[in-house]
Amino acid sequence: MKLFRFGSPENERPGVMLPSGGSLDVSAFGQDYDETFFATNGLEKLANWLETNAASCPNVSGSVRRASCIKRPSKIVCVGLNYAKHAAETNAPVPAEPILFFKSTTALVGPDDSVVIPKKSEKTDWEVELAIVIGKKATYVSKEDAFEYIAGYAVHNDYSERAFQLERGGQWVKGKSADTFAPLGPFMVTKDEVPNPNKLGLWLRVNGELLQDSNTDDMIFDVPTLVSYISQFMTLLPGDVISTGTPSGVGMGLKPQRFLKPGDVVELGIEGLGTQKQTALAYS
Amino acid sequence: MKLFRFGSPENERPGVMLPSGGSLDVSAFGQDYDETFFATNGLEKLANWLETNAASCPNVSGSVRRASCIKRPSKIVCVGLNYAKHAAETNAPVPAEPILFFKSTTALVGPDDSVVIPKKSEKTDWEVELAIVIGKKATYVSKEDAFEYIAGYAVHNDYSERAFQLERGGQWVKGKSADTFAPLGPFMVTKDEVPNPNKLGLWLRVNGELLQDSNTDDMIFDVPTLVSYISQFMTLLPGDVISTGTPSGVGMGLKPQRFLKPGDVVELGIEGLGTQKQTALAYS
Repeated sequence: MKLFRFGSPENERPGVMLPSGGSLDVSAFGQDYDETFFATNGLEKLANWLETNAASCPNVSGSVRRASCIKRPSKIVCVGLNYAKHAAETNAPVPAEPILFFKSTTALVGPDDSVVIPKKSEKTDWEVELAIVIGKKATYVSKEDAFEYIAGYAVHNDYSERAFQLERGGQWVKGKSADTFAPLGPFMVTKDEVPNPNKLGLWLRVNGELLQDSNTDDMIFDVPTLVSYISQFMTLLPGDVISTGTPSGVGMGLKPQRFLKPGDVVELGIEGLGTQKQTALAYS
Repeated sequence: MKLFRFGSPENERPGVMLPSGGSLDVSAFGQDYDETFFATNGLEKLANWLETNAASCPNVSGSVRRASCIKRPSKIVCVGLNYAKHAAETNAPVPAEPILFFKSTTALVGPDDSVVIPKKSEKTDWEVELAIVIGKKATYVSKEDAFEYIAGYAVHNDYSERAFQLERGGQWVKGKSADTFAPLGPFMVTKDEVPNPNKLGLWLRVNGELLQDSNTDDMIFDVPTLVSYISQFMTLLPGDVISTGTPSGVGMGLKPQRFLKPGDVVELGIEGLGTQKQTALAYS
């Protein structure tokens, strides 16, 4: 099943993409894709509900704005330097264990919304990442059991202001949390439709030029390792998002370095999880 | 006005402490102390509602469990090394600008709940801190306007696992986010009752021994500076919590270092904002 959300920012509603490619408004199901939805077995209930109600659901046009595919979660946990080549391009050693940081949930936007370059930013950078959506409360989960705690996967662009992240006091959250810095979607694909999340091609283009082109099989710490590891340090709630790190090809790693200017167009995607397209805007 | 929350963890309700010291259950007002409450002018509406309804509100016994005084916010933003002596005791330079990190909101508990030492923890440490509660959405706020965006203040114990924080990959969130690591309360005092948050005594005792004893006038970056600064990097939402850093006297800074063992009792307080008392438990 592919879940998406759509509509204007203050009026977002849940939808389901059909295997045929059509898209249904499932507002009548009565639940948006948030913590409560996942915590109350919403995925299974929605699938059952669709069996008898799909025919009466309105269609959603492809031209309607797509929102973040998950309604605001309790947290976005990000993994740093999880691809060996990306660690090398940022002159960082390959980490001995996952590096974790948070991103403010106020950064969430739709997959094709504009990315707004923050005030006083000179180093706004891109990062295509595989996002994991948590399906049930997870504390001290083993690697072997980790897949039971996953609801699905989505594309995330972990936008990063490198000066804010690295030159303003050391903790990365400062460069990760601006509004519009977390486009998530276009949809969440349930885990049953993603047989191996540790082998998915992912890519990113800026103004048409392919800058990131890798595969999640290059991740240093794979999907179940990350879910288990994070759950040793904090409780993950249903609907929480884990962003699993980015491959090489970010602007900071290019020679010379490149960062976003107003008007730049960023396109990205992951095999089976859809694509995103953002245009960079100056803050106004 | 002093707002508190009370009841068992799955059934927490809002209360108001009267100037006389009595405590009222204000469930009948119909709103808990969350983002929506603060965003919809809840403080003023509650004060007006109490004028005609206080007499019919049930009393809350002092023996009933107190919960976090704020219902789960969108984020807890913490400030690192914001007291010069604390920076010195951790062998860190005085920061040129505020150091920011996040704490998982799943860490929130009541002011007198037990603190659970995480699995494999050997360095669970204490940090008495002044917490700011945000009253309205704040983006790019000036220092001059910062107080307009504050709802009130509370006591926070920013529990920290020092090995997780500092020896496991560099980003601090890993050592700040365990369940029970954020006791908040016993109540939030509205800003009108705190004429100068930059001059409040704060203290912490472990097993009766006074280990932290300072004043917020020792903060390197004061309350309006922090609200303004953080809002340059992310949007603060109503109900969000900013924890403003801890003075010297944490376990990591003692010689020899001291960390919590099961059975240890931690008591702390801030002038005018009440006191907390936690007993340390082993994870089971």
